[in-house]
Amino acid sequence: MIKKYTYGNPFFTESVVASFEASEGMPEVGTVNLDNGFSFLYDMKAEDAVYGLGEANRGINKRGYKYISNNTDIPNHHEDVYSLYASHNFVVISGERTFGLYIDYPSSLVFDIGYTKMDELHIFCDKADLDLYVITGESIYDIVKQFRQMIGKSYIAPKFAFGFGQSRWGYKTPEDFAYVVKKYRENHIPIDMVYMDIDYMDHYKDFTINEAFGDFSEYVEELKKENIRLIPIIDAGVKIEEGYDVYEEGVANNYFCKREDGSDFVAAVWPGYTHFPDVLNPEARKWFGGKYKLLTDAGIEGFWNDMNEPAIFYTPEGVCEVKEAMREFIDKEESVDDVWGIRDMVADLANNAKDYASMYHNMNGKMVRHDQVHNLFGYNMTRAAGEALREICPEKRCLLFSRSSYIGMHRYGGIWTGDNKSWWSHILLNLKMLPSLNMCGFLYTGADLGGFGCNTTRDLLLRWLALGVFTPLMRNHACLGTREQECYQFEQIEDFRHIIGVRYRLLPYIYSEYMKAALNDEMMFKPLAFEYPEDRMAVNVEDQLMLGNEIMIAPVYTQNAIGRYVYLPEDMMLVRFKAEGDIEQTEMKKGHHFVEVPLNEVILFIRKGKCIPLADFAECVADIDTKKLQLLGYAGSSYQLYDDDGFTRECNLKMSRVIFNN
Amino acid sequence: MIKKYTYGNPFFTESVVASFEASEGMPEVGTVNLDNGFSFLYDMKAEDAVYGLGEANRGINKRGYKYISNNTDIPNHHEDVYSLYASHNFVVISGERTFGLYIDYPSSLVFDIGYTKMDELHIFCDKADLDLYVITGESIYDIVKQFRQMIGKSYIAPKFAFGFGQSRWGYKTPEDFAYVVKKYRENHIPIDMVYMDIDYMDHYKDFTINEAFGDFSEYVEELKKENIRLIPIIDAGVKIEEGYDVYEEGVANNYFCKREDGSDFVAAVWPGYTHFPDVLNPEARKWFGGKYKLLTDAGIEGFWNDMNEPAIFYTPEGVCEVKEAMREFIDKEESVDDVWGIRDMVADLANNAKDYASMYHNMNGKMVRHDQVHNLFGYNMTRAAGEALREICPEKRCLLFSRSSYIGMHRYGGIWTGDNKSWWSHILLNLKMLPSLNMCGFLYTGADLGGFGCNTTRDLLLRWLALGVFTPLMRNHACLGTREQECYQFEQIEDFRHIIGVRYRLLPYIYSEYMKAALNDEMMFKPLAFEYPEDRMAVNVEDQLMLGNEIMIAPVYTQNAIGRYVYLPEDMMLVRFKAEGDIEQTEMKKGHHFVEVPLNEVILFIRKGKCIPLADFAECVADIDTKKLQLLGYAGSSYQLYDDDGFTRECNLKMSRVIFNN
Repeated sequence: MIKKYTYGNPFFTESVVASFEASEGMPEVGTVNLDNGFSFLYDMKAEDAVYGLGEANRGINKRGYKYISNNTDIPNHHEDVYSLYASHNFVVISGERTFGLYIDYPSSLVFDIGYTKMDELHIFCDKADLDLYVITGESIYDIVKQFRQMIGKSYIAPKFAFGFGQSRWGYKTPEDFAYVVKKYRENHIPIDMVYMDIDYMDHYKDFTINEAFGDFSEYVEELKKENIRLIPIIDAGVKIEEGYDVYEEGVANNYFCKREDGSDFVAAVWPGYTHFPDVLNPEARKWFGGKYKLLTDAGIEGFWNDMNEPAIFYTPEGVCEVKEAMREFIDKEESVDDVWGIRDMVADLANNAKDYASMYHNMNGKMVRHDQVHNLFGYNMTRAAGEALREICPEKRCLLFSRSSYIGMHRYGGIWTGDNKSWWSHILLNLKMLPSLNMCGFLYTGADLGGFGCNTTRDLLLRWLALGVFTPLMRNHACLGTREQECYQFEQIEDFRHIIGVRYRLLPYIYSEYMKAALNDEMMFKPLAFEYPEDRMAVNVEDQLMLGNEIMIAPVYTQNAIGRYVYLPEDMMLVRFKAEGDIEQTEMKKGHHFVEVPLNEVILFIRKGKCIPLADFAECVADIDTKKLQLLGYAGSSYQLYDDDGFTRECNLKMSRVIFNN
Repeated sequence: MIKKYTYGNPFFTESVVASFEASEGMPEVGTVNLDNGFSFLYDMKAEDAVYGLGEANRGINKRGYKYISNNTDIPNHHEDVYSLYASHNFVVISGERTFGLYIDYPSSLVFDIGYTKMDELHIFCDKADLDLYVITGESIYDIVKQFRQMIGKSYIAPKFAFGFGQSRWGYKTPEDFAYVVKKYRENHIPIDMVYMDIDYMDHYKDFTINEAFGDFSEYVEELKKENIRLIPIIDAGVKIEEGYDVYEEGVANNYFCKREDGSDFVAAVWPGYTHFPDVLNPEARKWFGGKYKLLTDAGIEGFWNDMNEPAIFYTPEGVCEVKEAMREFIDKEESVDDVWGIRDMVADLANNAKDYASMYHNMNGKMVRHDQVHNLFGYNMTRAAGEALREICPEKRCLLFSRSSYIGMHRYGGIWTGDNKSWWSHILLNLKMLPSLNMCGFLYTGADLGGFGCNTTRDLLLRWLALGVFTPLMRNHACLGTREQECYQFEQIEDFRHIIGVRYRLLPYIYSEYMKAALNDEMMFKPLAFEYPEDRMAVNVEDQLMLGNEIMIAPVYTQNAIGRYVYLPEDMMLVRFKAEGDIEQTEMKKGHHFVEVPLNEVILFIRKGKCIPLADFAECVADIDTKKLQLLGYAGSSYQLYDDDGFTRECNLKMSRVIFNN
């Protein structure tokens, strides 16, 4: 059951699609206090766990730390980080009482989950203008499903987007992209997509292509013949440049965010000074979305939206203050405080709260200060694209994912989990976010495999790929200036071919489970705690996941490890994809096991009495033969396979068939 | 066997105390190349492991990453960090061939251990002026022991220093320190030391006390009556201030580091502009060491030397360049590159290589450029103190430890592992460094428990303390501006009393094993790989350690965990110190186990056929009654207990006695 409580005058975020009558009085769980903004308090029992928050730091169980919903362009995902790129304000408290909470509030919101006081859940924000939804049900799954139905169906990506993709900030010319394709193809490492980071544009201008490309649509077509799709990035900021049509149209029609005085708000990002499209304004959103057609007309079938927290490097106002402070600094005999003061001031130019408080949206003629709706920007930029793409290609799905998001955006696109690092700990963080994101409707998701920032190592990339084998978005992406990390840059390339090859062999299963999760409003990745709530050991496992209804995954995430401990909450079949191509199946008993996993192997566990389909090795999604599948797992079991043409928008589960493992 | 190879004209670091004839020709392992600086190459087999490097990042097995010996004041110990505060150039390669390498070279040195090429160990530096020692032996232990004998006996701390200590940057007045003592004593949480961070000084001037203290020796005496010792910090930089005697004496006698033109080198640290004592100059070292007497005369018995990489916030020359760049910046229309350029320039003022290259030492009349001997500064600052303290109190040991170090310093003092963070991953990093440090002679060591930077949580601190129970230096230390993390700041204080209480009960064992390790040139903390080299599983364990000859430790280091997996390489007795004070002993079989460990318990494992002594609970070291010990472990076993008065400098193992567990 869902009860909605409305406080003050909530901003209409459109994250919820179902409509509910607001209830009166105090919610049946916790205590709401409106004396000073909004505060929700709940006394947790010692054993209570808290799940959710989508893209957030730390564990599957969020207890023991503080999380702040405040979309932030943050390249360093340390353990102590409170905010990432997204705000997904849905949690499920599980324990003596089990219930879900969704706080529909688009500004900064704090979840203090046993951080300040060990047994206190405290959710609070400055302004009591929000909708609180309290969801009760028979199980965590039931609560999640009710929530998912309330927020609407999840985005479905085209099938090619379940292939492997290579990305790197720094590819610029047609030759750069062609080289990547050539190296993958000649080494027979499967691949379907090459991502175009900011340098494909002309001076970072959205919806332009740099002149090196000549006829871009011809180039796109050429790569498609090799079954490669180019996936360009679109940034939030529109370069201020006379003669640049997107800029000029935006200015002429007041489609950009404003300053308080009504002038266009100015912020520097990659192109230098830019304006931000006012994606909360339906007209401006429609206009900005329409621009994607410039690229779809050239044959592009997928996009990633970036910098849409929106990230701000600096504003003219900020620089002006810094320059003033520099003048003072230059003229005095510097103290330590002076030097650090100026250092911090320059560093704080980026993503400064002051700037977000001086930017405005036009909501049907009403000016809304950006910081009060900050967490909606990425959502609505991606909504602009999603709505437009539905008009541009009504028959076919397009690939679309975003860095920044809010619940509601899951209907329009997926997300990647931002600028992580080549850290072993980020393999595990990647794993932990998957079920939390699924709870919030984000199914098409994945991390930058190998790590975006810092220098990767061969073993880190291999281990991370062995998790990426299972994530819908499987992309290797790296930052300019870091060690080159395309799979062909390392020794013993056959190991990479094998690991990514396993992904393509498993793709019928991954795609099928994705579609079932999307169409049934369910989770694709599930904590063991959700599946085995009565098993105390399973409830506390933080480094294994259930994937779909048939398998459990348990990747290795520590350097130099020869294997890892795995807990089996029931008897399962260990499947080992060996480097030479053999597949070994071993029945294992419920309980604790140490499982050896060489660097060049992938393992998974099939649940008792179940089986999964396996295709032959293929180098691109189009070449996967779903008519020719073998089944792995228990004899006498069957599997319900969903399959389709990979593009049709009107999917339903009638497109699935049962296959038997005799 | 030890073979020494000399290349070029090595700087005499005095890290090695034994003398060796230099061998001719190529070492029997690896390939040395002198074409372009110094390069040592060795082809590793797939299963080879590499141990050592003392205070360094990442695993017990160092394979798979790059490490640079270049002492650095670095507050963010991420996985990708190459250099920390210390340079300990000793490694043991273990595998097909097992041998040790020590590279006695005091400037920047790279260990690329399978990072660039997966099977290549590459050690290199710019100048081929160094001594290379190649050590072969019967086992890793044998190699380590030979190395330890070659570098001289490890520092031995007084017994009180094995108690618990509380620290926080920000305590300033006598009331601040007294409050900490009061809260610990009234809550009956054992404690022996309170650390004085920089604010106890008068304007950060070394060897001064701020005026709030009045008669400092009286205050020191007063706390000693409560069995509390105050441990002041000493920083490397001496404030430039007319009338400040240390400054004036240093200038008058040319005891400070110089610029190339012979003027005193100036660098800003906490006090603002300072000079660095030229601790590589024996006269200046003696002079600076003598200053510690100002504090020992007031009753002080221990010190921590800080900022001795040496850390530099900025220099006048650096600021001058920055101001020049700011002038240009102010006058132009800024681009993204301009803003980031000035931002990076200000940030790079700190610990800038250019500054280290413009600072000089006076070595017997010869000017030596600092960057060529950079890694020796902390070592020699601590040597200054160690040598002086031996003269000041020839009978009694003093507590002394340092942030920066080089091998050789282990004879004069211990180290703490610098400014870590309140990150769960740093519990494990703390554990992993312990055996590596022991290999290099550093036995008195520990991390800032609870984490120095960032906000801690109650559970993190409890889990970290449960590791700290076993480390010789057991100190809770936190940074100004972070959440208060003294044990009495949290709920259920009894849990802290219990955990730290276990330390005091185990102290006879810890002290005894420390002394045996120090006097026998052995390791106190040992990887399982060293103890069970034939056990493939044990060899790969990276989160458990052998402590002394009797026990194995396996702390919990993940949030919300109810326990952890433990591998027993032989049958062992699990000892569980339960929160209510009961001690549970359970025999366990060799193999894999999941062991539950509540937040308020400490566990350890006693090796088959062994026992350990246990004292009664005490609130300070002086109150531990080593005459009244019980024994835990296997019946019929015995333990060789070392004990002494806790101060005498002339210790030997004849001071030990055998006790029997009947």
